[in-house]
Amino acid sequence: MTSTATTTLNDVDLDAVAALADAVTHNEAAGDTTWSATVTWDGAFRSSARIRDFAPITSDEPTGLGGSNTAPNPVEQLLAALGNCLAVGYAANASARGITLHDVRIDLRGDLDLHTFLGLRPGHAGFSTIQAQVHIVSDATDEQLQELHSAVTATSPVGHTLAAAIPVTIELTD
Amino acid sequence: MTSTATTTLNDVDLDAVAALADAVTHNEAAGDTTWSATVTWDGAFRSSARIRDFAPITSDEPTGLGGSNTAPNPVEQLLAALGNCLAVGYAANASARGITLHDVRIDLRGDLDLHTFLGLRPGHAGFSTIQAQVHIVSDATDEQLQELHSAVTATSPVGHTLAAAIPVTIELTD
Repeated sequence: MTSTATTTLNDVDLDAVAALADAVTHNEAAGDTTWSATVTWDGAFRSSARIRDFAPITSDEPTGLGGSNTAPNPVEQLLAALGNCLAVGYAANASARGITLHDVRIDLRGDLDLHTFLGLRPGHAGFSTIQAQVHIVSDATDEQLQELHSAVTATSPVGHTLAAAIPVTIELTD
Repeated sequence: MTSTATTTLNDVDLDAVAALADAVTHNEAAGDTTWSATVTWDGAFRSSARIRDFAPITSDEPTGLGGSNTAPNPVEQLLAALGNCLAVGYAANASARGITLHDVRIDLRGDLDLHTFLGLRPGHAGFSTIQAQVHIVSDATDEQLQELHSAVTATSPVGHTLAAAIPVTIELTD
């Protein structure tokens, strides 16, 4: 018989998540968050993104794109952000439903035509499509997993940012 | 008098970039690229994104969001991807224009309402807006820098992916 201060499932601190949901429910403004990052150019196609006190996320391009191939490139990092967001989503929503997860793996891919990036023609320089395939090992039924999956895709911050048109303001300042 | 095999500015290999543009100009299909990442869930809100052979990009949530705060979270990684993409853009486009860059710094922020992520109401779970402020130190004129800036924002793969609505398919598979 043990007494623990927190309730966990999938190693997720359910009390902390419930407390946050409670705070946001009772105080509209508690849901307003702002996130930030600072990127510095390191020469050639290399750069580093600093977030809070964490080690920088370094970036480069493959040699075929004129880089020195020392790190993933920005569009790969975008896929990583989506996959990491979905992973949090499955962990949070599974835990809230009492579903134990044994393993989650997400394979992501995106198609991108380089013509606009290279300045060869105007238009859309970004991904034309992004696909994520999710593999879950769990004792939950297929029905439970499908319901979990629906909840995750309905609430994914990065997924929704990509799937919707977001106002992106890029300003040159002194 | 030295003889070098490549032409560089801002440490950018202009010959490699020109060769790529030339290849894509003469072969439409050479512009078609696919990028990928694989994410594994590491317990609680921690996960790791693997891209080619590089060290994984680890992810977590702050304690206030129920995480263990061991790494940047996915929406911060999204801002990092945008900033890193813009950094490549300034380096590539400045170099192509003969502009020497001494320093580039990009401050990014995004606003996000947690209500949908927390499952408290349906709607858009992602960033409502994203802002990037770009600081460039260069001998170029303000006019040259504004033209450079326009070229970068017109050709940014991550910027365009965020600013447009992209088909994102997320499938649960075996």
